[in-house]
Amino acid sequence: MIVTVTPNIALDITYSLDSFELYSSMRVYDVAERAGGKGINVSRVLHELGISTMAVGMVGGVVGAAITADLVDSNIDHRLVSLAGQTRRSIGIVDRSAGDATVLNEAGPQVSADEWADLLSLVREQLVSASVLVISGSLPPAAPLEGVGQLASLASETDIPVVVDTSGTALIAAVETGKPALVKPNIHELADALGTSDPVAGGRDLIARGAGAVAVSMGADGMAIITDSQAWRARPPEFIKGNPTGAGDASVSALAAGLAEGKGWEECLRNAVALSAAAVAHPQAGSFDSDVYHRLLDITDVEEF
Amino acid sequence: MIVTVTPNIALDITYSLDSFELYSSMRVYDVAERAGGKGINVSRVLHELGISTMAVGMVGGVVGAAITADLVDSNIDHRLVSLAGQTRRSIGIVDRSAGDATVLNEAGPQVSADEWADLLSLVREQLVSASVLVISGSLPPAAPLEGVGQLASLASETDIPVVVDTSGTALIAAVETGKPALVKPNIHELADALGTSDPVAGGRDLIARGAGAVAVSMGADGMAIITDSQAWRARPPEFIKGNPTGAGDASVSALAAGLAEGKGWEECLRNAVALSAAAVAHPQAGSFDSDVYHRLLDITDVEEF
Repeated sequence: MIVTVTPNIALDITYSLDSFELYSSMRVYDVAERAGGKGINVSRVLHELGISTMAVGMVGGVVGAAITADLVDSNIDHRLVSLAGQTRRSIGIVDRSAGDATVLNEAGPQVSADEWADLLSLVREQLVSASVLVISGSLPPAAPLEGVGQLASLASETDIPVVVDTSGTALIAAVETGKPALVKPNIHELADALGTSDPVAGGRDLIARGAGAVAVSMGADGMAIITDSQAWRARPPEFIKGNPTGAGDASVSALAAGLAEGKGWEECLRNAVALSAAAVAHPQAGSFDSDVYHRLLDITDVEEF
Repeated sequence: MIVTVTPNIALDITYSLDSFELYSSMRVYDVAERAGGKGINVSRVLHELGISTMAVGMVGGVVGAAITADLVDSNIDHRLVSLAGQTRRSIGIVDRSAGDATVLNEAGPQVSADEWADLLSLVREQLVSASVLVISGSLPPAAPLEGVGQLASLASETDIPVVVDTSGTALIAAVETGKPALVKPNIHELADALGTSDPVAGGRDLIARGAGAVAVSMGADGMAIITDSQAWRARPPEFIKGNPTGAGDASVSALAAGLAEGKGWEECLRNAVALSAAAVAHPQAGSFDSDVYHRLLDITDVEEF
């Protein structure tokens, strides 16, 4: 079973409008909502692939109740710490005429030391039956800076491979404290955290700090995987139009599944690139186009560099 | 007791940003939320005035649970029909640097015939101890067009004065079916519904169609009250800067309280204008600045015209 942890779950609300008029009052007829946050998206993709997964996180208030209800409806196994504060919302406003979107992300609830300790306990319990631990996304306000590292350490102690997808100082702290098997920054996050946009140089830096391997996602340019001695790269063989939100989460799902099944890095990389492109082809984050996935899997080439 | 009915309650969520950047992703640290909808605002103002009130409406889903929790916290008595659908949200995005706001109003849940019948029963029960019935705001999707009129008729049958604050075809239907004691369109709603922005001509048209009297709100120009034989007008004696959202609801609170206490139209009008201006002076809809209210009440003049 692949356990995912989402420290800062969100209710993703999408408003689709014919046209967005700034500083006016608009009526919204097309409203969609779904449990979101990067680790939730990873579990959703794994569930669609038929791979056993457990989503772990923290929720509170009536927005938290909406998260729980949606996970139940989606048949995604979950264990969630109850927070005194209220889970955040993320409002996406799609402007059909402009073909663009505006996103408002609430910062999220203040998390107490006790609530954070409850999350660590809950993750420790789930690790008994885990093959891989995935930790995805930002930390909520007031969570300890070394929080992702603490979560990663729990798994490292028991020799369960850990995949981390986070950014900024939390990424560096996670690598140095938690020694994860794999981290997956995108190329911009790599540059922000380390000052280099060279995937091999940045990857080797993260490996020197404690990461086992590094996967760097590069949007339409695909992905690179760097180990201490090798590096591979794969590009989607065709341009896929669609919604890139959640494509990185789909690649993490493929990488975690590959680690769980003991696949080599080249096969992990091919899977990650094909699944990520198939996620772009699907309008909703956390889902993918199965036909696109299987077609691309056959024709995606991996090269050493 | 003044009974208010809000057929389409909303959860008012306010995001305050230093600056709104269209087609970007923003983090929101300042989030406020409150039970809203026009009748809820009327009950809130009455409660602040120390006048007994009961808020009646329909709520559903986890957003409905947030409404109920907020009304309990605010000590506002309420009776709410449970809906299968989910209560709507209204998102206000305040841009501090522009000094302006963008509002996204979800349309609201589909209401079944049975749920609508439950609302009518609930209102009929509350009328036993009511002095005035206030019906405020829009109808939810799928509610009968003559819905406001049906609600108004319940009170007219038992000789309880009814105040209606709605717009468009629902306003006309309410006047013709429900024969309310008073309707309060604003000057734009009057023009939209009747094709005239002359408060006396429009008011007399509504009286001919079945209204007892008509109060026309005119923003910073104050309010006019028209009966079949007389007309009065009052302006706030000074310009009040602030948030005009909910100012019309405050004026309805004053008018309903005046009807309940058997006050004359001139005194009702003076109260409505002072309380409405005091609501502008308060940043939140449904609240008013008590000092401004009492100061303006002494110096607001009512003139016949």
